[in-house]
Amino acid sequence: MTVRYKLGCTLSYQVLAPSVFIFNIEVARLRRHVNMTERLVVTPDLPLRTHTVPDINNRYFGVHASPGPLTIHYEAEVTLDPFRADPDTVKETPVADLPLDIMPFLLPSRFVPSDRLADFARKEFGYLKRGFERVTAICNWLYNNIDYRRGASNEQTTATESLILRAGVCRDFAHLGIAFCRALDIPARFVSCYAYGLQPNDFHAVFEVYLDGRWWLFDGTRMANLDGLVRIGVGRDAAEIAFCSPFGAVDCGPVEISIDRADGLPEPWPRTIDAISTEEPAPNAGAL
Amino acid sequence: MTVRYKLGCTLSYQVLAPSVFIFNIEVARLRRHVNMTERLVVTPDLPLRTHTVPDINNRYFGVHASPGPLTIHYEAEVTLDPFRADPDTVKETPVADLPLDIMPFLLPSRFVPSDRLADFARKEFGYLKRGFERVTAICNWLYNNIDYRRGASNEQTTATESLILRAGVCRDFAHLGIAFCRALDIPARFVSCYAYGLQPNDFHAVFEVYLDGRWWLFDGTRMANLDGLVRIGVGRDAAEIAFCSPFGAVDCGPVEISIDRADGLPEPWPRTIDAISTEEPAPNAGAL
Amino acid sequence: MTVRYKLGCTLSYQVLAPSVFIFNIEVARLRRHVNMTERLVVTPDLPLRTHTVPDINNRYFGVHASPGPLTIHYEAEVTLDPFRADPDTVKETPVADLPLDIMPFLLPSRFVPSDRLADFARKEFGYLKRGFERVTAICNWLYNNIDYRRGASNEQTTATESLILRAGVCRDFAHLGIAFCRALDIPARFVSCYAYGLQPNDFHAVFEVYLDGRWWLFDGTRMANLDGLVRIGVGRDAAEIAFCSPFGAVDCGPVEISIDRADGLPEPWPRTIDAISTEEPAPNAGAL
Amino acid sequence: MTVRYKLGCTLSYQVLAPSVFIFNIEVARLRRHVNMTERLVVTPDLPLRTHTVPDINNRYFGVHASPGPLTIHYEAEVTLDPFRADPDTVKETPVADLPLDIMPFLLPSRFVPSDRLADFARKEFGYLKRGFERVTAICNWLYNNIDYRRGASNEQTTATESLILRAGVCRDFAHLGIAFCRALDIPARFVSCYAYGLQPNDFHAVFEVYLDGRWWLFDGTRMANLDGLVRIGVGRDAAEIAFCSPFGAVDCGPVEISIDRADGLPEPWPRTIDAISTEEPAPNAGAL
Repeated sequence: MTVRYKLGCTLSYQVLAPSVFIFNIEVARLRRHVNMTERLVVTPDLPLRTHTVPDINNRYFGVHASPGPLTIHYEAEVTLDPFRADPDTVKETPVADLPLDIMPFLLPSRFVPSDRLADFARKEFGYLKRGFERVTAICNWLYNNIDYRRGASNEQTTATESLILRAGVCRDFAHLGIAFCRALDIPARFVSCYAYGLQPNDFHAVFEVYLDGRWWLFDGTRMANLDGLVRIGVGRDAAEIAFCSPFGAVDCGPVEISIDRADGLPEPWPRTIDAISTEEPAPNAGAL
Repeated sequence: MTVRYKLGCTLSYQVLAPSVFIFNIEVARLRRHVNMTERLVVTPDLPLRTHTVPDINNRYFGVHASPGPLTIHYEAEVTLDPFRADPDTVKETPVADLPLDIMPFLLPSRFVPSDRLADFARKEFGYLKRGFERVTAICNWLYNNIDYRRGASNEQTTATESLILRAGVCRDFAHLGIAFCRALDIPARFVSCYAYGLQPNDFHAVFEVYLDGRWWLFDGTRMANLDGLVRIGVGRDAAEIAFCSPFGAVDCGPVEISIDRADGLPEPWPRTIDAISTEEPAPNAGAL
Repeated sequence: MTVRYKLGCTLSYQVLAPSVFIFNIEVARLRRHVNMTERLVVTPDLPLRTHTVPDINNRYFGVHASPGPLTIHYEAEVTLDPFRADPDTVKETPVADLPLDIMPFLLPSRFVPSDRLADFARKEFGYLKRGFERVTAICNWLYNNIDYRRGASNEQTTATESLILRAGVCRDFAHLGIAFCRALDIPARFVSCYAYGLQPNDFHAVFEVYLDGRWWLFDGTRMANLDGLVRIGVGRDAAEIAFCSPFGAVDCGPVEISIDRADGLPEPWPRTIDAISTEEPAPNAGAL
Repeated sequence: MTVRYKLGCTLSYQVLAPSVFIFNIEVARLRRHVNMTERLVVTPDLPLRTHTVPDINNRYFGVHASPGPLTIHYEAEVTLDPFRADPDTVKETPVADLPLDIMPFLLPSRFVPSDRLADFARKEFGYLKRGFERVTAICNWLYNNIDYRRGASNEQTTATESLILRAGVCRDFAHLGIAFCRALDIPARFVSCYAYGLQPNDFHAVFEVYLDGRWWLFDGTRMANLDGLVRIGVGRDAAEIAFCSPFGAVDCGPVEISIDRADGLPEPWPRTIDAISTEEPAPNAGAL
């Protein structure tokens, strides 16, 4: 089943001195993001510098703004055609079979010090059946053990701190899920997205796990449908895909985000129990 | 049942430049440490400065050593007559009824950042029946979730680090147990001791928890009998009761510790299931 | 020169469920706090439990409050008669000559992990002339290297974090000053006080350092006169002398603090250059 | 001046259970690494999986080893023809002119939490003249403020910890230099290499900084000539370019590294004062 979404965001800033902004708010161009139409309006009308990261398809644009107000308005329509599978059929890929270009997603990163969690992850999840089921167990652990609480964390909070504090927001749930996976030698990465059904409307963060030759979506917060996530970017962790990185003297104004079904139908319920992927199989897989 | 123990230690150092040493290796003088005889030999024969901390009875002695070898030999015999109670009868003391001079043992300390563990402790232990039983649950959690592993920690490891690493030595078990208790508003403190039955022989660390008007012994490692612990010192955490604090240029040599039953009988088995205290009831308790 | 101050505070809370509060807001009873008169009003009129810590003279009181508003009003008048000395005459006390009961103030504590700063302190201050002058150099370093900035820290910030962030409030300046001293084997402790001249009015935090047989006041923030500090409490760090420790469900309302000269004269200027102590010489000093 | 080097390493392991190893020990194929000849011998003779990262040219190879001994022997000859410039001519690239694909090297990473060092870096280096000179000042600061000391750090040590401990090894010097640069909005990355003249022989770690459209080498340890560094890999930090990443049960044996001039001439002295780069100008630079 495919669904068409209309989504967008409006970001406002007061620029106090000449400043550079890098944005990552545009929907990734993926084969499973079908028939995408987009509009980006920068006010005032400034030249844009753009960059799409090879392979992972993150789209960045930069502007160099003079003092005064700056507004970014982005809107898109896109039909989601995710790949679906029966979770029971999705096996763990042995390390020996991981493509070498996926190995970086086994490494610790700024907010995911997975190198410190080897014993923790082994003790909590090491004995479980490997595959999609084990990552689902990690998500269940997150849901049952971490409180979703605004203000419990800040932009420097790491997964180990969230583990101690036992509270956080979607970003922290994703970081901790990624940390457990990497500590178990399962590649995992951070995903920023528009999330249909998320309340209140905001950018959302989930994570992807590499299993059985492909990246699969997971969300420990249970706050949105996995097949209603429209991906913006992927990265080692939140550091790589901030929706806005300002360099200079800037006051941040309001952020408005929206996503709705283009057909006006209500959110599907119950939520999907399929394994969901918006990625193609990794092209260069090959066992030793 | 009382048992008489003979115990002692020999500590060796090579002093490279004039140095001060503070030791805390002598058995605490408590009413339940009965008929204690002791011998302390410092080689070379240096003047000692001594200090016994009021109320908590920690005994420190200091020496000012010149370059050359320094050896400390201590031995004692003491009969342990601990106070015993049925664990089921030991209730939690409400905060409103805690003596104000016991309140410091609710505070976070260097190795026990309990202020960061409020949510963690509440989630794991908050729903349990209060009293001795809940602290026993904490000890069981430690035993089941933390690996005893030499080298997993060092002298700067905190309870939150142990919680993440899920491994440590007796000092780390005690710190984490104390952290959980304080996070639940239960006073707890660190105890250094000679421990009958500990393998291999070493100084041991356990913790005491204030319940029902009295301090009770707990040990998450299950490495020794609670009624075979001969207390040396108590403190907020390990920082306060290092067995040796050298100031100066010193090489540390071997440390030998021993404790045996003076009557030569074997270690009792099974281990006690009594609640064990070597302290008297707090004298100045009084409810608001 | 002695000056008489009138000072006080009003603290307001909304108690949501039966709660215990411990307060440490009363002026310490010291010989150099002369002719003190005080008034404490708790509304509603609840029974108080009080405790004065031996030797260090911190005064705590506890109340057990029912749901509803709670207001604490304290006021005092006191004449400050600090001990003064020429800073050049105040020497460092060698570790060998430190009273053993002062040794705990060499130890790391929750917010002062001085055990991690040995190299840092040695590199920055190790080569300086020992004594009052070296601690003054530490205060100058704090003033020149740390920004005073509200919001830069929170109630869990440690001295090492402040050292990295290079910003903090009075509490953080005191913690870092204490950390450097302890790392250099100089006893140091945290002091909470009413501070004449502080803008805006608030509780203030400074630190005391044990030199030449006595505790001396230091303040790296340069925000108030050292001879206009009216001491409330001393402790290893801020953990021990919170002005209010609530246990229960409580909303904190406004805090009002005031201190003025009882004679209405203006603040003295320039500030004192004397070494200032409000303590007597340590009674049990004695060299090995 | 070009110099030809012969270099290599021998790494030995005892494999206890079937394990995967990823190695990054081969010299990067760069235009300025001229006339390279190489030999790689894996004993036993196992199939290799190889991967060269686009753009940055890191070369990885993986083996899947059965229990028993495993030895990796690598040797190469290569002529270094680094790009040289007068340091005074190398300017800082304004953020507005940074290619977007270089921006990731402004981000914090596992061992480089540069997001916490903005104030520190601004206070120490913010007032300095921008360009090569300012990064040289950072290297001088490292050399003067951090002790090179084996054992002061471990494989989990971050730049902020090194900053507090004020001691570390080449890896820590590089991480801290990178942290300061990123905190000042200067792209910087970690470099692993064979280093001619390094005593004792070992893999070396330095860092590269993006200035004036090109990556330049820097080394705060002053342990080797910048024009005698033969690059292996570059990455955000050490996490990305471990020379060996084992997955499985493995005992690590000795590591032997060597690098000599192929012409047998002695090490040049004094060391170069040129700005040294082994990279070409970034191809996609373009100002907004």
